[in-house]
Amino acid sequence: MTLDTKPRRQGRRAKQEAAKSAPARKVDYRNLRNPFPTMNVFSEDRIEAMHLAALDALERLGMKVLLPEARAIYARAGARVDDGAEMVYLGRDIIEAALATAPRSITCRAGSRDRDVTLELGRMVFQPGAGAPHATDRDRGRRPGSERDFRELVKLTQHFDVLHMVPPLIEPQDVPMHLRHYATLDAQFSLSDKLPFVFSRGTPQVRQSFELLQEFRGLSDEEFAANPHCYTIINTNSPRVLDIPMAQGLIDFARAGQVSIVTPFTLMGAMAPITVAGAITLSHAEALAAITLTQLTRPGAPVCYGTFTSNVDMKSGAPAFGTPEHFQASLAAGQLARRLGLPWRCASGSAANINDAQAANETQFGNWGCFLAGATVIIHSAGWLEGGLTVSYEKLITDIEVLQMVAELCAGAEASTDDIGLAALEEVGPGGHFFGASHTMERYQTEFYEPMIGDWSNFGTWSERGSLDASTRATAKWQEIVHDAPEDVGPADRLAAFRERVARLSEAGGAPPES
Amino acid sequence: MTLDTKPRRQGRRAKQEAAKSAPARKVDYRNLRNPFPTMNVFSEDRIEAMHLAALDALERLGMKVLLPEARAIYARAGARVDDGAEMVYLGRDIIEAALATAPRSITCRAGSRDRDVTLELGRMVFQPGAGAPHATDRDRGRRPGSERDFRELVKLTQHFDVLHMVPPLIEPQDVPMHLRHYATLDAQFSLSDKLPFVFSRGTPQVRQSFELLQEFRGLSDEEFAANPHCYTIINTNSPRVLDIPMAQGLIDFARAGQVSIVTPFTLMGAMAPITVAGAITLSHAEALAAITLTQLTRPGAPVCYGTFTSNVDMKSGAPAFGTPEHFQASLAAGQLARRLGLPWRCASGSAANINDAQAANETQFGNWGCFLAGATVIIHSAGWLEGGLTVSYEKLITDIEVLQMVAELCAGAEASTDDIGLAALEEVGPGGHFFGASHTMERYQTEFYEPMIGDWSNFGTWSERGSLDASTRATAKWQEIVHDAPEDVGPADRLAAFRERVARLSEAGGAPPES
Repeated sequence: MTLDTKPRRQGRRAKQEAAKSAPARKVDYRNLRNPFPTMNVFSEDRIEAMHLAALDALERLGMKVLLPEARAIYARAGARVDDGAEMVYLGRDIIEAALATAPRSITCRAGSRDRDVTLELGRMVFQPGAGAPHATDRDRGRRPGSERDFRELVKLTQHFDVLHMVPPLIEPQDVPMHLRHYATLDAQFSLSDKLPFVFSRGTPQVRQSFELLQEFRGLSDEEFAANPHCYTIINTNSPRVLDIPMAQGLIDFARAGQVSIVTPFTLMGAMAPITVAGAITLSHAEALAAITLTQLTRPGAPVCYGTFTSNVDMKSGAPAFGTPEHFQASLAAGQLARRLGLPWRCASGSAANINDAQAANETQFGNWGCFLAGATVIIHSAGWLEGGLTVSYEKLITDIEVLQMVAELCAGAEASTDDIGLAALEEVGPGGHFFGASHTMERYQTEFYEPMIGDWSNFGTWSERGSLDASTRATAKWQEIVHDAPEDVGPADRLAAFRERVARLSEAGGAPPES
Repeated sequence: MTLDTKPRRQGRRAKQEAAKSAPARKVDYRNLRNPFPTMNVFSEDRIEAMHLAALDALERLGMKVLLPEARAIYARAGARVDDGAEMVYLGRDIIEAALATAPRSITCRAGSRDRDVTLELGRMVFQPGAGAPHATDRDRGRRPGSERDFRELVKLTQHFDVLHMVPPLIEPQDVPMHLRHYATLDAQFSLSDKLPFVFSRGTPQVRQSFELLQEFRGLSDEEFAANPHCYTIINTNSPRVLDIPMAQGLIDFARAGQVSIVTPFTLMGAMAPITVAGAITLSHAEALAAITLTQLTRPGAPVCYGTFTSNVDMKSGAPAFGTPEHFQASLAAGQLARRLGLPWRCASGSAANINDAQAANETQFGNWGCFLAGATVIIHSAGWLEGGLTVSYEKLITDIEVLQMVAELCAGAEASTDDIGLAALEEVGPGGHFFGASHTMERYQTEFYEPMIGDWSNFGTWSERGSLDASTRATAKWQEIVHDAPEDVGPADRLAAFRERVARLSEAGGAPPES
């Protein structure tokens, strides 16, 4: 059963019960189900035509697969392989068999059970902006991302229950590439108990990361393999290229039972056809090829379908996000994902250079495309500027406010006889007010979402307090969180063992990325 | 047939045909149908319970109706009236009969046929922020609204096809109340050919406005009465009071065949019960009472259902907009509107004090509540700050960008075989790009929405150009539009006659508002 079409209303009642003993508002942002109806952009027959075109493209035009091992896996399944041209031509029977073994539901284990993440249609999982070379904030300005930035951003990610995974928010460029995975794991282990991302930068790094994670979590081989404990993102090189580290990642993650989230990054008019239908057809073909590799490697391996399809400015070639075409591409991908029945990822984003109204509007608009597309995992849902070249601390905060508001909608609302409150109407005469009504008094401490960064004070009060805009207020907010965040989220003994092991591995030369 | 549940895809094809002869992108923002699926917050049986509770409240608790004429109209229909207490108790049979005669579709005539506005379920009509005492822009700061501000804001409203009505954006406080309706009509007639708003500030002003409008448009009595040529907003004084000018407005507009948009303004926890279900039940009851008055006055009179229900900060009493509770209230109102089958209005808004990320996020979030609620008319969809105390010129521009992006979604997308573009995939090899593909070249001038104020340039270019944020860029944009806008949109001879008549009416003392 898919869960993505029904508004959910559970939770509020439980919250109100809880509120009776403690007047603090209780909300569960950790387990979200998409409350929005799904939206289609194309008719079902056109979606089928796109699916068939993608199959045709894979069979007749083929994918360039740079890793010989991957080509061999495809060949063993019966694909036509041209090793000289590094081309793989995949018949639809191979793809259909692979799709049949891909799991519909994946339970990922985090550092504690209440941080576990289930990936299936109908769930809604948020990830902050990731993969940026730069970090920026109002105090320190825009700079190349550093380990310090990474650690601070992991603290912020850990702080908010509405963020469910710890991605590579920025590149810690002050850490050499052959040691970088140690630095990112250190932050993920010591500062967070959420599901960690591991980069697919070649088998040596990936295997070390798996081993370090397994040790840190104290898992047997069987336990580690029984559920995913980390995830990676696999970007194809559109059009129609699967490069060496990405193909290795698909194979390594599938073998280890860890999650690959397949994401062709197909910019309409640049690396993909200019039309929504064309770009999504290409994205779909590439996703099918990648998903197939995981299932050929190990049937049942956890894998997510995905896309990140937006458009470029055709005058400058600059990528754009949160556009109408991006929105439509998300909807089309959602239709294809539901056709397959697989959990899937989509993405928001913004091309703005500062955390202004453009930035807020593009990210929220892109997020709505993901919500209405029924995306399972929504990546770059907060904090991304410059089309992903920078993560902004302030934008992270202001975007998280929107995610929290969406999480509130997941809880639904009640309309019991008491909620409808005819008794309250009787209590308050015409032209009166409800501030003191018993119906109000019973609920006033817990009924409404309280904004984190939104300021509802009037103009006079706001002016007296310094006329601070949302970004300025967000600076104070993230600084407070970073300052107060614990440095020892993970167990101390395991963290010490991890750091010892990392010291030895570093001395031994680390593990350079492969390409 | 209601049209609010089906995504629409027409238009793109026609656009592409048009684009073949002229490479400029052609879009029709003037006639929008809601492309989004409607969302429910309550089950149908709970909506029915709310409807029944509203009927019960009207019958048993009653409405306070301050205008004797209105009470007499209700009494003639069989309502129990207590003139001493100014109370009206409405039986459900009276309400049901009224709902049966209220029109499901209303075609409003604007200054030209292609500006006409059809109000029915499934349509999407945008109005900028309205009713603010103040105006603000980055150059001149925040000030009491003036006639100059009003005229500039009407120019901006006229400029954008995605805005469909000319509301009272700000109060021109430098014009005395007894002459103010002349000043607003002058702006609406000389600067715009869109559907004008007329304030219900008592029968004398309203009748004069109707006469001036009828003359200016050159309409016979029959023509003026055959279709609405203007609209008003009727706010009840929640809870359960209908004041004199509002009741007069309902009667005067109904008699003249002009549109009343009924809008209880019910802030949860203040003028309404604290729960979404309670506040919307009260709003629904008040709307039913007001709609009933229009139909008792003249069966078939054009009237819209509506609500504006949000919450307050329970610590300070400050109103908030674009909140999760506001969103849910919009959804509940949409369910009730669909139950009645009537066109209806909803509203967005923001409590922010400046055009920052909070302002953008609240307004867009509030707008999404209206979109998914299937609202016919979305009021305050652009430009509102401080919970409606100020209209910001810059926010008007940045919010309109979002409305334009939504209008693009209304046009849908095509997925013909040619759009899917397998031929383009054949043309571009693995790892290539599509910039020069014939599939791209045929479409690149017209395929994508071009942002009005969004800046997609990279950080270096953006910095070289002065690091301007969206609000700063919006200042240049509105100044250009105001500077270039025509001052003579209406026919010169009729405008001269209108101004002569207004001069005589002004000399004769104008028409003070009633209360």
